[in-house]
Amino acid sequence: MLAVFGHTNPDTDAITSALVYARLLTRQGVPAQAYRLGNLNFETPFVLREAGVEAPPLLPELEAGSQVALVDHNESAQSVPNLAELAVVRVVDHHKLGDLTTMQPAFLRFEPVGCTSTILLKLHREANLSVEQVDARLMLSAILSDTLHFRSPTTTPDDREAAAFLAPVAGVEDVEAYALAMFAAKSDLGDTPAETLLKMDYKVFPFGDPARSQLAQARGVQHWGIGVIETTNPGYVLGRQAELLAAMDQARAADGLNGILLSVVDILNETNVTLVLSATEEKVLREAFGVETAGGRAELGNRISRKKQIVPALEAYFTPEA
Amino acid sequence: MLAVFGHTNPDTDAITSALVYARLLTRQGVPAQAYRLGNLNFETPFVLREAGVEAPPLLPELEAGSQVALVDHNESAQSVPNLAELAVVRVVDHHKLGDLTTMQPAFLRFEPVGCTSTILLKLHREANLSVEQVDARLMLSAILSDTLHFRSPTTTPDDREAAAFLAPVAGVEDVEAYALAMFAAKSDLGDTPAETLLKMDYKVFPFGDPARSQLAQARGVQHWGIGVIETTNPGYVLGRQAELLAAMDQARAADGLNGILLSVVDILNETNVTLVLSATEEKVLREAFGVETAGGRAELGNRISRKKQIVPALEAYFTPEA
Repeated sequence: MLAVFGHTNPDTDAITSALVYARLLTRQGVPAQAYRLGNLNFETPFVLREAGVEAPPLLPELEAGSQVALVDHNESAQSVPNLAELAVVRVVDHHKLGDLTTMQPAFLRFEPVGCTSTILLKLHREANLSVEQVDARLMLSAILSDTLHFRSPTTTPDDREAAAFLAPVAGVEDVEAYALAMFAAKSDLGDTPAETLLKMDYKVFPFGDPARSQLAQARGVQHWGIGVIETTNPGYVLGRQAELLAAMDQARAADGLNGILLSVVDILNETNVTLVLSATEEKVLREAFGVETAGGRAELGNRISRKKQIVPALEAYFTPEA
Repeated sequence: MLAVFGHTNPDTDAITSALVYARLLTRQGVPAQAYRLGNLNFETPFVLREAGVEAPPLLPELEAGSQVALVDHNESAQSVPNLAELAVVRVVDHHKLGDLTTMQPAFLRFEPVGCTSTILLKLHREANLSVEQVDARLMLSAILSDTLHFRSPTTTPDDREAAAFLAPVAGVEDVEAYALAMFAAKSDLGDTPAETLLKMDYKVFPFGDPARSQLAQARGVQHWGIGVIETTNPGYVLGRQAELLAAMDQARAADGLNGILLSVVDILNETNVTLVLSATEEKVLREAFGVETAGGRAELGNRISRKKQIVPALEAYFTPEA
């Protein structure tokens, strides 16, 4: 049985892609089971409830050599801790290719689109398989989530086309109303502890490829944690700035990071206010983005995509000659 | 203009895949130009002549940041020397994933099939593009070449299905006769210098991933050069054993390798006799394959696929705990 899973700190796409890809593979004669690598965020339970689907179970410890399929990620830092011992036989992803290697030739399908589910829809079509209503609902939700209902600069024509195809199959008549309900669920953070908010949509990135740059070689690889809170109610999150900075301080030390950032993204107004922990982060934000920090915050304007706007600027900063 | 190229020491698939993929991308609105990274082997000119196509030009030096598409390879050791400075935006390949990374999300299409061209045919179908006769001829030739007319254990049902579809489009009525003519051209080595024979289908592999194994960590990464001569006339090649061993000795020293092997594959009888340079190679062949060396040769039996039978056994030997 092939284990299919998305990244740690799973977002909606990481969960729904595992469910949809496991079902697609099973229909194609490759028995597969979806798993998750962590707790759900506040949006995904809404999506699963609307689709009438259970959350996938937590991935159990896998023996060395077990076959796995990765969705919505490929870097070891975002995956299961013993990934190097596992046999990665399939990957469907829309992120840049990181440190993944495979022991044998494998099925890899990467496209620079806004959402893994957009690729999964193509896989259904290429296999001449109909899309079932529940899968359509899951894929549509992931596309709306990852693209912030087409507001994110990661959105591509393929994502719009996929969503337009999926909405009637999913039985979603008013896509805008459905997206707003998803975002409201995601923003209903209640009294969630600050550590949980920080880590809800959080990834660790290695920056500065020593093979590409002399400066990077001299500095060594830098590990930065970057959290994002996408919300329709940024005032609530920013009101908890002191708690969040304390959680960031703790995480930076506990995870041995060189730096940590938490971006509070206003989904509806498409703006990004990033919390700044120390002079280290302040200097990098100034030099990589040309923005100043005041009162522990930096206004990153309309840079709302970690993948497309934050990470590439940091990678260019830390690997200057590439 | 996107530069499309296969690996160094190009075989037929590396050349034809570059030609076919560049044409496919151009038809899809992505202007692309095929290149090669080295001299043609003895089979490819026959294929190009039959198809009425010119060989692609040698890749010129590309500036840092230039966009490239890789076909039939992904490891930096088999690619252009400054690959790390280039922007890899597309890869179509059927090998295991090595040390490739990308700066941005990219189009990656890897499948564990016998030939890159089998994947390229799928790309035509998925794009609803007809296959032109010349492209059919090039793809069919590459499939017959890579799978040794379906003799190689790398052959998959997808390769057979692709070839069966392509043969009538290519206007090849007798596939067997065409394959034999290709192999005869490939085996007509004349007075080619031994160094050229060694490097004709030759790749350098890093073995022993330190992240996967303590022993590998202690030993460090081992670099081995592995050449293959596929021929219908193995007696001719083996008759030049002394010259070939001298060329291997020189290459091992010049390239700073830990070991070097040259497999002489009898295409029609599906057997592999491998030339063994020194006690280092002798020990590894004994421990990884259980075969003994006599008179500078080891009989590897029906292990005729470097990708599927030689490299995985060496990788398992050098990374024992993975």
